[in-house]
Amino acid sequence: HHPQCMAHQYRLPVHACSRQLSLMTGLPRRLIMLVKMILFAMVFSGSAVTAFVVSASLSSSNARMLSPLGMCHADHIVDLQAQHPALSPSLILSSLADSCEEMGMKTLDVYGDFNLTSEESSLRKLEANLSDTFGKEDAVFMPSGVMAQNIALLIHATEKKKLFACHHSSHLLLHEQDAYRELLKMEPIIIDTTNENAAGGLHIPAMRSHHVKSIFLSRTNAEQLSTLILELPHRELGGKLTPWPEVLQIGNMCRTHGVKYHCDGARIFEAAAGYGLNLKEIVEPFDSVYISFYKGLGGLSGAMLMGDAKFCQEARVWLRRLGGNLYTLMPYIISAHAGYHKHVIDPCMTFTEKKEKLQRIIQRLSSDPLISAYVTFDPKIPETNMVHGYMTTSIEECKTAIQEVEKVTGIRILSRIRPVEANERAKQLGYQTKFEWTMGSANGAIDDNQFLNGWRAFSHCFSQPDK
Amino acid sequence: HHPQCMAHQYRLPVHACSRQLSLMTGLPRRLIMLVKMILFAMVFSGSAVTAFVVSASLSSSNARMLSPLGMCHADHIVDLQAQHPALSPSLILSSLADSCEEMGMKTLDVYGDFNLTSEESSLRKLEANLSDTFGKEDAVFMPSGVMAQNIALLIHATEKKKLFACHHSSHLLLHEQDAYRELLKMEPIIIDTTNENAAGGLHIPAMRSHHVKSIFLSRTNAEQLSTLILELPHRELGGKLTPWPEVLQIGNMCRTHGVKYHCDGARIFEAAAGYGLNLKEIVEPFDSVYISFYKGLGGLSGAMLMGDAKFCQEARVWLRRLGGNLYTLMPYIISAHAGYHKHVIDPCMTFTEKKEKLQRIIQRLSSDPLISAYVTFDPKIPETNMVHGYMTTSIEECKTAIQEVEKVTGIRILSRIRPVEANERAKQLGYQTKFEWTMGSANGAIDDNQFLNGWRAFSHCFSQPDK
Repeated sequence: HHPQCMAHQYRLPVHACSRQLSLMTGLPRRLIMLVKMILFAMVFSGSAVTAFVVSASLSSSNARMLSPLGMCHADHIVDLQAQHPALSPSLILSSLADSCEEMGMKTLDVYGDFNLTSEESSLRKLEANLSDTFGKEDAVFMPSGVMAQNIALLIHATEKKKLFACHHSSHLLLHEQDAYRELLKMEPIIIDTTNENAAGGLHIPAMRSHHVKSIFLSRTNAEQLSTLILELPHRELGGKLTPWPEVLQIGNMCRTHGVKYHCDGARIFEAAAGYGLNLKEIVEPFDSVYISFYKGLGGLSGAMLMGDAKFCQEARVWLRRLGGNLYTLMPYIISAHAGYHKHVIDPCMTFTEKKEKLQRIIQRLSSDPLISAYVTFDPKIPETNMVHGYMTTSIEECKTAIQEVEKVTGIRILSRIRPVEANERAKQLGYQTKFEWTMGSANGAIDDNQFLNGWRAFSHCFSQPDK
Repeated sequence: HHPQCMAHQYRLPVHACSRQLSLMTGLPRRLIMLVKMILFAMVFSGSAVTAFVVSASLSSSNARMLSPLGMCHADHIVDLQAQHPALSPSLILSSLADSCEEMGMKTLDVYGDFNLTSEESSLRKLEANLSDTFGKEDAVFMPSGVMAQNIALLIHATEKKKLFACHHSSHLLLHEQDAYRELLKMEPIIIDTTNENAAGGLHIPAMRSHHVKSIFLSRTNAEQLSTLILELPHRELGGKLTPWPEVLQIGNMCRTHGVKYHCDGARIFEAAAGYGLNLKEIVEPFDSVYISFYKGLGGLSGAMLMGDAKFCQEARVWLRRLGGNLYTLMPYIISAHAGYHKHVIDPCMTFTEKKEKLQRIIQRLSSDPLISAYVTFDPKIPETNMVHGYMTTSIEECKTAIQEVEKVTGIRILSRIRPVEANERAKQLGYQTKFEWTMGSANGAIDDNQFLNGWRAFSHCFSQPDK
C-alpha cells in the first residue's frame, strides 16, 4: 500500500553490532543491547522462542511487537521536510541517557561549573571544544540564542553607545518582543533591503558592504553605534549569504569606527558549508559569535556565545543576571555534545553534502514545467542547505493536496506551511502560501527521485483536479 | 565491615511489582521491568541459570553483576545530608524517559505551547495543575527562579515606581549579580534584621510586620515602592517563617499603599508544612508567587510564576524578552511533573513528616552533651524541614573527622560544609564552619538512631582525638 515508505522502517539484523544498529535507526544503543540480551536469553529456552529469534530482522510488524521497549517508530511516512527524525520525548531521553555513557558524562553540571576545568566538567569541556574549534578564546553555554545575543549587545554597549545595527530580517527585530528596547534600553539602526530588487520578484538581498558604508555617513550613527550584527546565513531570506569578501570589508569598517562586529551564527555550520570555509575561518572576522545547538545539530535547545576571555567573563555575569545560569543544564549539555558529534565531528552526511543535495533537487523541481507552475523557490539556487518556497495556491488547497499525496504515495511533501502575510512582497506577487525547507540527515537519506515523485503528485492535484 | 550502610543497598525480590521496586530504589521502572524480563527468560533455560534467578534478591554483589544495566548504585554510604538520592546523569534521563510514558507525555513542548490547551500540551497541563492547586488564575513555567522573580518585579514596576523591598538575606541581593540594578534599573529598600537580636547568639530574625510598617513611614518609599518580596521560609536564616498573622498584616499594608505583594516561594511546600496550611491558603495573600521545582521536589531545574491572568500574560512576553522561552523545555517539564507527583501528590514522606523528623533529631542532637559541644543549630527548633548548623572547629578539622567517621561507621554525616565568612555574626561568636541541612525523602528514610550514632562518632573525634 505504501511502496515508497521504507525510509523510517527498521530492519535490525540481530547479529549486527549494537552501535551500527543504533546509528541505522537513531534508537538508543542501550535499548538495542537489551533487546539483544532478551533475544539471546530466549534462544536458550527452546524452539518456540527460537523461532522468534530466527525471524528477528525487525520488519515493521515485529518492530510493533517490541513497542513496549520503545522500538516502534511513530509512522512510516517519507517526510521530505523533516531534517531530523521525529522522536518521542521518551526516546529522546533514553537516547541522551546512552550518550551520557558513551561520552563519559558522570556528574551533573551545577550553576555553570564556573570553577571547574574542562577535565572535571562536561559543560566546560563542551565550551572548550567549541572555543577551540572556532578559534575563539572562550565560549559560554546558554539556554537560548535570544539570551546569548542580548548579552552580546549588553557587553558591547557603553553609556554613550546604545545603538546597534542589523538587517531588517534580524531575529532581534522580528521574534523577541522588542527586548532590545524594553529590556536593554537600546535602539536599532535597521538596514532595510526590502525594496532593493529593481527587477521585482521574490528576491530580497542580504546585507552588503555598501549598506554598512552608508550607515557610517551619519556622524551620530558612527558615534553611538556599539555593535553591528551580521546573520550568516540570513534565515528569513531562505539562507542567503553576504558575499564573503564583503563580510571582511564590513569587518574592516567596524574596526575603523570602533564598532564591535557580532555574528548571528544560529546556522553557522550551514553558512560555513555555503562559503566552503572551515569554522575558524568563518568566525575569524567577528568579535563575538553566537551559535545554536537545535537547528542543524538537532539538539533540544541551547546556544554558545563565543569571544575573547574578557567578553566571556562578562557574559557569565550577565548569564546570571538574565536567569540563564541554571541549577543544571545537563539535558541540554549532553544533547549539544551528542548533536555536535553526530552532525559535525562524525557526520553520516556533511553540511556540504546537504547543500549539494538540496541544490540538485531544487534544480530538478524548478526545471520541471508541471512542478514549477505551482512552486517558486528563493533563492533560485540555494546558497546553503536551506531554501524558502512560495505557492500561489491557498493554505487550505495546499493542505488538501498534501494529504491526498500522502494517502496515495506515502510521501509527505510538506508538514509545516504558513500563509503569506499581507505586508510581504510575495503577497503582491500573488503568492498565498510559503514554507521553509532545510535538508538534514533525515530527509537527506531519501532518494532524490522521491522528491520529484512527491512534488509531481502534488502538482497533479492542481493540474488534474478530477483525477 | 560497614554494618550500618544498608540504606542504599538493593534487595530486589524478583516477584515484587516493578512499581514497588522502582519506588524502593529510585531506579527507573523500565530498567527494572527489563531485568525481570531477562530473569524470567533465563528461568526457561535450565537449572544453571535458574540458580541465578533463585538468588535474585539483589545484594550489592549481584547488583554489581547488573551494572551494565545501570543497576549498581554509586556507593553504599549512609548520607545524612542528602535530601534526594544522588543519581548519575544517565540514570536521571532514563528515569525521566519512564516518567514520560507513565504520564503520557507524547509530544515536545515548543516555544512554550502558548496557543495550546492543557489537554494538548504537557507544559500547559503542568501550568494548569499548579495554578489550580495554588488557587491562582494562571501559571507560567520558567527555566529559573532568578528569571521568574525579575519578571515579577518588571511587571509590577511602573515608570514612577522603581523601588522594591525585601529582607537583607533575599536571593536577589545575595546571588544575582545585582540584576535588579544592572538589568531592571530598580533599587531595593533593604529590611536588615542582622542586629535585631538583643540577646546576642546566632539568631537573626525573619521579616516582621513592624519592619514593613516602618518602611511606609517614609513618603518617598510609599510613593515609589512597587513590590514587597517576602520569602517563605527565609532560606538564609535556616528556614525561619514570618509569623502567619503578620504575613496577613503585611499584605493588608501593601494593599493600603498600592504595593504588590510577591512571595519568594522557592520552598513553598516546606513553608506550608511549617505553618500547617494548604497550598491555596499559604499563597492567598500574595499578588504573585514564584515556586521552584529543584529544591524540595528534586527536579532538574525550573520554576513557576503564578498570579492573575493579566500578570501571566505579561509574564509570557517578558519570558521571551529574557530568553527563557526555549525551543523546548521538555526535560524540565517532565522532571517537574515527576517531582511534583513524587513529593506532593503521592509522597512516600510528606513535608510535615520531614519537618517532624528533623525536629526530633535536632532535639536529640542538641540535648546530647557531647554532640552539642561541637555543633549549634539555628533555629534551635526547626520551623520547617531545614536548619542551619554552626561548628567551632575549622573546615579542615571537620573534613578529617567526617572522613574518619565514614571510614569506621559507613555514615557520612555531612558532604557539604562551608567556612563562616568574616562579616558574619557567627564568626564573632567563634564559629568557623557552617552547613545547611534539609530533611528529604532520601535521608528521611534513615533510622533516627543512625543520626545520633553518626554525630556521636563525629564528636568523639574531637573529645578523644587519640582514639
